[in-house]
Amino acid sequence: MLQDTPLAGLSRRNLLSLIGMTAGSAAMYHAMTTLGLARESGYKGPVKLEGDPKGASVLILGAGLAGMTAALELRQAGYNVQILEYNNRAGGRNWTIRGGDTVTELGGATQECEFDDGLYINPGPWRIPYHHNGLLAYCKRLGVRLEPFQQLNHNAFLHSSKAFGGKPQRVRDIKTDLQGHVSELLAKVTQKGQLEGDVTKEDQEMLLEALRSWGALDKDFAYKESLHTSEFRGFEKDPGGGLGAAPVPSKPIDLSDILSSGLWNSLANFALYEFQTTMFEPLGGIDMIGQAFVREVGDLITYNAKVTKIEQDDNGVTAYYEDTQNPGTMQQASADWCICTIPLTILSQIDINVGGPMQAAIEAVPYASSVKVGLQFKRRFWEEDDLIFGGVSYTDLPISQISYPSTDFNTAGKGILLGCYTWNGPNSYEFTSMAPEERVRKAVEYGAQIHPQYKDEFETGVSWAWHRSPFTLGCAGDWTDEMRKEHYDNLCQIDGRIVLAGEHASYIPAWMEGAILSSLDAITRLHQRVMAG
Amino acid sequence: MLQDTPLAGLSRRNLLSLIGMTAGSAAMYHAMTTLGLARESGYKGPVKLEGDPKGASVLILGAGLAGMTAALELRQAGYNVQILEYNNRAGGRNWTIRGGDTVTELGGATQECEFDDGLYINPGPWRIPYHHNGLLAYCKRLGVRLEPFQQLNHNAFLHSSKAFGGKPQRVRDIKTDLQGHVSELLAKVTQKGQLEGDVTKEDQEMLLEALRSWGALDKDFAYKESLHTSEFRGFEKDPGGGLGAAPVPSKPIDLSDILSSGLWNSLANFALYEFQTTMFEPLGGIDMIGQAFVREVGDLITYNAKVTKIEQDDNGVTAYYEDTQNPGTMQQASADWCICTIPLTILSQIDINVGGPMQAAIEAVPYASSVKVGLQFKRRFWEEDDLIFGGVSYTDLPISQISYPSTDFNTAGKGILLGCYTWNGPNSYEFTSMAPEERVRKAVEYGAQIHPQYKDEFETGVSWAWHRSPFTLGCAGDWTDEMRKEHYDNLCQIDGRIVLAGEHASYIPAWMEGAILSSLDAITRLHQRVMAG
Repeated sequence: MLQDTPLAGLSRRNLLSLIGMTAGSAAMYHAMTTLGLARESGYKGPVKLEGDPKGASVLILGAGLAGMTAALELRQAGYNVQILEYNNRAGGRNWTIRGGDTVTELGGATQECEFDDGLYINPGPWRIPYHHNGLLAYCKRLGVRLEPFQQLNHNAFLHSSKAFGGKPQRVRDIKTDLQGHVSELLAKVTQKGQLEGDVTKEDQEMLLEALRSWGALDKDFAYKESLHTSEFRGFEKDPGGGLGAAPVPSKPIDLSDILSSGLWNSLANFALYEFQTTMFEPLGGIDMIGQAFVREVGDLITYNAKVTKIEQDDNGVTAYYEDTQNPGTMQQASADWCICTIPLTILSQIDINVGGPMQAAIEAVPYASSVKVGLQFKRRFWEEDDLIFGGVSYTDLPISQISYPSTDFNTAGKGILLGCYTWNGPNSYEFTSMAPEERVRKAVEYGAQIHPQYKDEFETGVSWAWHRSPFTLGCAGDWTDEMRKEHYDNLCQIDGRIVLAGEHASYIPAWMEGAILSSLDAITRLHQRVMAG
Repeated sequence: MLQDTPLAGLSRRNLLSLIGMTAGSAAMYHAMTTLGLARESGYKGPVKLEGDPKGASVLILGAGLAGMTAALELRQAGYNVQILEYNNRAGGRNWTIRGGDTVTELGGATQECEFDDGLYINPGPWRIPYHHNGLLAYCKRLGVRLEPFQQLNHNAFLHSSKAFGGKPQRVRDIKTDLQGHVSELLAKVTQKGQLEGDVTKEDQEMLLEALRSWGALDKDFAYKESLHTSEFRGFEKDPGGGLGAAPVPSKPIDLSDILSSGLWNSLANFALYEFQTTMFEPLGGIDMIGQAFVREVGDLITYNAKVTKIEQDDNGVTAYYEDTQNPGTMQQASADWCICTIPLTILSQIDINVGGPMQAAIEAVPYASSVKVGLQFKRRFWEEDDLIFGGVSYTDLPISQISYPSTDFNTAGKGILLGCYTWNGPNSYEFTSMAPEERVRKAVEYGAQIHPQYKDEFETGVSWAWHRSPFTLGCAGDWTDEMRKEHYDNLCQIDGRIVLAGEHASYIPAWMEGAILSSLDAITRLHQRVMAG
């Protein structure tokens, strides 16, 4: 049809530009899809910083993923780069606690992690969605080996202390049965003709077939105990070999029981784009990513540098910092430009001469509360007894979830469970207020309601409350839509010679990808500014 | 309430026995569930062969998983064991084709596999469900390292050559949109009161909330383009970092288009109990399992032994075989008992003096047709260009599916796709009838409709048609319910001194677990017979 219109002479890309100019970017993306082009990632491919910065220098504050990404790319582009890091290690929240590590929270509570060799917990980020292209690109480039992270495990549990007598249910039962019952109900009203007007007659016929297939319904569109439904939800007795091996069907859970249990509410945790298969984790701990960056830019980092003041004028930026190994010893570092990745919780307490809009943005964003507890057990009973290989069980208990290791499957020996992972809300605050050993005790106590084996098998634990983390005072930027409208662009704009970066300066807060994409955007704009000036 | 009934004095286990005796096993299993006991696996734990067989000997025919499992356990129990194997290798269908391997089909078609070092294809079994406890137990015991096998990848494709202009759709779009539309339709009729009578008023309120959550509906229970639905189906433009990073919502596919596409039909491949997360594969090829068994029982195996006749009398069993390395040279092996794991396709052509019922059973079971094609590509474009990390794309093209490797994720270099995997039906027969190189050519031609990169990136391929496999003449026992009723028990019963084992003697045909459970059941019964005699 295009041949008959005035647009016929336009190339597809010109057409897109035209749509983009007249109808806004959303319309353009839709047009792109219609025309068969791919969806757009937040990562635009390897950053291109072309042109000679002629010896310009950049001071980077913070050696987390945002800071190290910037350092890696800017040095390569010809900048003189140095990084100040408050911690005695790089990586920031990209961090793994291993046996032998000592960790200290704000207030002085110190834990010595007593995990066995090779066992660990990732207190911060721990999994990578397949569409976090920026992070995946750096993992590939820096040689970080990945293994799949199991988020959805059909055999993990959904648990409500108020439903099914407190007995955990298998994900597969809740998931399959809800889908089956919903399909049956819709098939029933379709057959009664009650969809007339909403769905064409022809579509109704196909809808019935789709519901039968998708909902595991029988020939009469009923969802009920049968070998057929058991092929989806699992059998009461699995098929076997030899004599007496015929399978015995399992009995679906009543819709009413599923609805009142509220367990359906957890199914989104497996369906969300952020949590869909295939997810990844680095082999050996999430900090393999940070360590890979350190191999590239470690020589640029000054550790134990607690920044207390950031000052800019027309000529450059100076950061004043205390060497925490020599308390009271103040030092300073200067450069033409500054990329500041310090979390806003901390930055808002630092003297920094930026304009009012950026200052207001720095002060506006609260940080999410999060607590994780890692528990070491004598044996991998979740695999041996419960056939749960990786994945997450969700519960209404204060621990919120139990996550099973996605590595060393089906092996003998010890293992670590993530025994508590809270995110905001009263439970998170309550766990934060506890002493670390009390959190571990509570995680074991609650977890035993789901896995009674906890009582016999627990050995040792470690916990981390992000609001008590001296280097972040919280877990991640906790934006609302209103805040974004008022402050987000002001936070991200270059202010004089300073630009901010980090997950807090992204639309993907709390994720490593947010830190990296924010950094790439910041250095791209900074470089443009340098080249223009 | 139990206290008020005559049953009050019974222990739970006694109660179960009572129910079992009066109401049959299905009723008993249901009672078990109700009382909180676990579901039953086809695997009953490590086999216990107690008592001294006093030097009794067992001849095992076939060194596949069934034969080697029997050999391992029987030798340990005190039997004198030997195995005859037709192939020049053990493992049977547990087999991996690697670069440098030469494979020959019936009819003489020979392929030299030209894959690069370390790359391979599993022509037979390739994945392990988490509930195949028997196989997993042997993997653990024999030190076979496992990695997750990705079956469901939300970013893989569903493809119909007759829908969406032949453009592949992402699994996540079809899956999320079908669920959303179904939820919206059911919410609508619920709000209209059309579920009255089927669902209580109270449940209707909860159902609406459940549908809103599960279907990603908005506050008015509508499923439509929004950032909320995009959080499930993915965005048109993903959220990013820094300026201009706001996400752009994607547009759901119309229900009518989904229904007429038929793509919903493939969703069962991710929901079935057999294919649910978490699945596994051995690191380095499926034959790591067979090789682990060989480390245990390899010394018992005589290779290149083509059995032509099996003869039993009151004193024992003799197998006559040709040494295929010295054609025409007949040999024989004798023992007190025989476990025959030879596929029924072959066994039905061998002279064996068993009773009529077993003979009829041997002749009754047809074997499934299956063809696999492995394709080597210059680069892992499915990851690099399409963000498909593992999983399976399904298509209505004759290749049926494309499976992406579940290992070495996010690495540079070459990779192998399973470019065709047929199972029965005309396509399978047609592929079987082609010359191996023609199958490869066809797999590339069809696959290019889904991945145009095939044209530039393809290097070399190998294929295997199971009906042309000299050692099985088919892929796996293809039972119907009717056949099972008539023949299954007759196939599995001990006939004199002979008992059959293998996936064909199980309710889990084509799966390795079927071979192992069948073998464990056969040796348990054989041992009882020996001890009784």
